[in-house]
Amino acid sequence: MPERLIIIGSGPAGLTSAIYASRSKLEPLLFEGFQEGGIPGGQLMITNVVENFPGFPDGIHGSELMANIRQQAINHGTRTIMEDVTEVNLKTYPFEIKSMSGTVYTCNTLIIASGATARRLPLESEKKLWGKGISACAVCDGALPVFRNKELAVIGGGDTAVEEAIHLTQFGSKVYLIHRRDELRASKIMQKRVLTHPKVQILWNKTVDEFVGENQLRSLKLRDTITDEIMDLEIAGAFEAIGHNPNTKFLNGQLSLTDQGYIKTKPDSTQTSIDGVFAAGDVQDSKYRQAISAAGSGCMAAIEAERWMQERSGM
Amino acid sequence: MPERLIIIGSGPAGLTSAIYASRSKLEPLLFEGFQEGGIPGGQLMITNVVENFPGFPDGIHGSELMANIRQQAINHGTRTIMEDVTEVNLKTYPFEIKSMSGTVYTCNTLIIASGATARRLPLESEKKLWGKGISACAVCDGALPVFRNKELAVIGGGDTAVEEAIHLTQFGSKVYLIHRRDELRASKIMQKRVLTHPKVQILWNKTVDEFVGENQLRSLKLRDTITDEIMDLEIAGAFEAIGHNPNTKFLNGQLSLTDQGYIKTKPDSTQTSIDGVFAAGDVQDSKYRQAISAAGSGCMAAIEAERWMQERSGM
Repeated sequence: MPERLIIIGSGPAGLTSAIYASRSKLEPLLFEGFQEGGIPGGQLMITNVVENFPGFPDGIHGSELMANIRQQAINHGTRTIMEDVTEVNLKTYPFEIKSMSGTVYTCNTLIIASGATARRLPLESEKKLWGKGISACAVCDGALPVFRNKELAVIGGGDTAVEEAIHLTQFGSKVYLIHRRDELRASKIMQKRVLTHPKVQILWNKTVDEFVGENQLRSLKLRDTITDEIMDLEIAGAFEAIGHNPNTKFLNGQLSLTDQGYIKTKPDSTQTSIDGVFAAGDVQDSKYRQAISAAGSGCMAAIEAERWMQERSGM
Repeated sequence: MPERLIIIGSGPAGLTSAIYASRSKLEPLLFEGFQEGGIPGGQLMITNVVENFPGFPDGIHGSELMANIRQQAINHGTRTIMEDVTEVNLKTYPFEIKSMSGTVYTCNTLIIASGATARRLPLESEKKLWGKGISACAVCDGALPVFRNKELAVIGGGDTAVEEAIHLTQFGSKVYLIHRRDELRASKIMQKRVLTHPKVQILWNKTVDEFVGENQLRSLKLRDTITDEIMDLEIAGAFEAIGHNPNTKFLNGQLSLTDQGYIKTKPDSTQTSIDGVFAAGDVQDSKYRQAISAAGSGCMAAIEAERWMQERSGM
């Protein structure tokens, strides 16, 4: 017998879809992941305090929030497997899902909530100071006390980098935008806004050679891409905005993706290019990327999966 | 000076947008409402235990959840006013917002999260037993223990009524669908599914004359719309699915609405027909209507409002 619903991913999107689907008695089987696409629980697991997930007036630790949501899904009947999905076959029905141990599962509906991985600079010093003044999300972390009225840096040159730089001007005394080229990829209107912003200074043709600090980030060692000159920049926070990689490798091209590699979904829906396959959370969202919006789309996916099955008799 | 952001509504959508906007230093002013469109805090305030809002493994009382979210918004700097908005002027800029006390506020951006009100049968007995076996949301309440393996009833004949009836077959031993006409308004495919479902029995041409019970619903007194005959139907739960009214009266036709009266928003966005005006939650969602999806869209609205202001200089 195929599973009625398999869910791939254990971040806010996957687990919220599991809560909804479990309460609807779909008895979902959820692959939590193991090492592909980050750790089980998703990006919140490596966050300290989450201040913007509604329901927790004093904030909650990312790992505690995810443990709560996981327990809630299990309490309602979700079965979990701590394995990566390595391969899917969506050309057959029921769909086939293969896990890292080699087992093949089949299912009537599938929710993909495998998330996205923030691209990070491949530096030892970055790894060491991650979460200690280095973040990949200004909207998530910019408001933390450690960054207030301090000089901050955003690394990148696209729309997200520019948006994050302007966002951070609300908190920091000054924001450096560090870009390896001599022009921004961001939209014209955002370029104008950031180029004229009194609190933003753009450092052109610079790459980060090293993040400096012991237990907390103190400065950046920057290299000029033309002159090779090195400069030190004292800052209290660095925000990497060099893009995200949606975790879709296991799909092997079977679903339509956007130019940026995100799973395409119908407007105001989680329906993908294949009937009965739904996508929720960051794997299909390049725009908002918040835990709460991911959770909302997980709820939508579960409701859509249930309705899709209702419309096919015998499930 | 105009406010940078005014938010109308204090359910999960409005308050989540307030949390995000406050953390972005937009210092939002939020109208909680007073009596129009239900009580401040929204529809969860009249719910008992909420089992499906992620983060609370053992569930949480609706009023406690909303108090938490409200406190979180206030902790981050949201200012609240417990008044209804009676009128808006979106043809002028900054927008004008008039409250019940007659004061006129102005703002650069506006988020409308005024919710929807479930239509309810206008019966004294319904009011008395509301929440004691009567609900307006099968997806929210159907899984509660009091309804397990009991005979249940859904009142209505549209898509929602049919979806809720099928949803409830997961929990109830039998589900009656009570409809005042001799055919359903639901889509053909859903009609077929419900007409052939072994656990659903449709009672045609029936209206509810009375909900019967002392502290808990025990039965319905049904009237045949053709013969006027009265019958008693013993059930443990009744789910009203006779539609919702989005709370948009104060808009006085200034925003584009759908045929059903919901605020139209751009695909995968909260942007309404007027630039700088955003809509989140049930007032723009006839499809999912869950606290968590409303909260997700509130987050989206705050991010979109901030980005919209970023693109206009001087705000």
